[in-house]
Amino acid sequence: MTRWKLYTSPGTCSLASHIALHEAGADFDLVKLDFGTMQQQSADFLAINPKGRVPALVTDGGILTETPALLAFIAQCFPQARLAPENDAFAFARMQEFNGYLASTVHVAHAHKRRGARWADDAAAIEAMRAKVPRTMTACANLIEARLIGPWVLGERYSVADGYLFTIARWLEGDGVDVERFPRIVAHRERVGARPAVQRAIAEAGG
Amino acid sequence: MTRWKLYTSPGTCSLASHIALHEAGADFDLVKLDFGTMQQQSADFLAINPKGRVPALVTDGGILTETPALLAFIAQCFPQARLAPENDAFAFARMQEFNGYLASTVHVAHAHKRRGARWADDAAAIEAMRAKVPRTMTACANLIEARLIGPWVLGERYSVADGYLFTIARWLEGDGVDVERFPRIVAHRERVGARPAVQRAIAEAGG
Repeated sequence: MTRWKLYTSPGTCSLASHIALHEAGADFDLVKLDFGTMQQQSADFLAINPKGRVPALVTDGGILTETPALLAFIAQCFPQARLAPENDAFAFARMQEFNGYLASTVHVAHAHKRRGARWADDAAAIEAMRAKVPRTMTACANLIEARLIGPWVLGERYSVADGYLFTIARWLEGDGVDVERFPRIVAHRERVGARPAVQRAIAEAGG
Repeated sequence: MTRWKLYTSPGTCSLASHIALHEAGADFDLVKLDFGTMQQQSADFLAINPKGRVPALVTDGGILTETPALLAFIAQCFPQARLAPENDAFAFARMQEFNGYLASTVHVAHAHKRRGARWADDAAAIEAMRAKVPRTMTACANLIEARLIGPWVLGERYSVADGYLFTIARWLEGDGVDVERFPRIVAHRERVGARPAVQRAIAEAGG
């Protein structure tokens, strides 16, 4: 059996999968890519993930990418850790809906701050994208705040969605969001940040 | 039990969920929103989906959004239709990885053609985004083409991922992609388009 290996980089969404692996009690190796030297675009890494992104999880079945898929997979491989609803399609879909919103809308809004070159070449356009990030991220935070009853994303039960929200909520101040307007998100972030698995992942990830 | 209701709009990604519901043999009502009059931002619809987007699926358990979550939910609610891998966490994750890529990367690239105002206010920036769409969508098509062994996304087995790829692949020409470079995607699109459930969904959706 291949030992699992998680490819990460500090400050990226790969922290969510890293947290989930520790919450699950998984045994795995961590590989940190240096985005400063564009290691995610190296031939070696593109052979692992042709998208040139993290996270990528090497498992005994093959290599998996895309955070919502990875989080559900980790939860399903370690059912005793109870990191996702089981035998309840609607509750599972609620979790996937939340994770999908983080991936397809919130993370995308955030990416327009430093990754605008993905979607336009013109320097002025990239600057115009950057300028809107505080507003798009505030709109996302409004939507999350309204739904976040707590203590966890799914209510009474911790799940992989919590580590994912935590990962993205750490970006809010840097994205120009006034977090004082979002007390539930801040309280959730503190609650998740106090968990041993989360502290361990942050220490290992280096940010 | 509440009768299920799918909110859609012609030409949008909601077709993927519409196809999945017919493939599943589900009994549901269809509600078509007119994006021309911004019906998706009406108070009535925002009460259903505060994101102001389609698809939204009203079920007896509650309202669900986000295409990858909806597709997996529909598949799990109708297991006899065999629209997703069961009891195989890795195969399920492969499907979710593919659907997640369509949602978070491919659909997002496409959205920069007509929805640039989501990420910048400046008209020149929005035009710069639009100009890059043929290249970003071609890069996405390259990645999909390389992995699409066929006949279906998951290989020998049809799944909800096929209706989703079909939905997005219909956008390629309009996005300025030279589809002759992508024979597997085109063949897949024809294969999916020939299915009765897909033809029925297209006829009902009006595009």
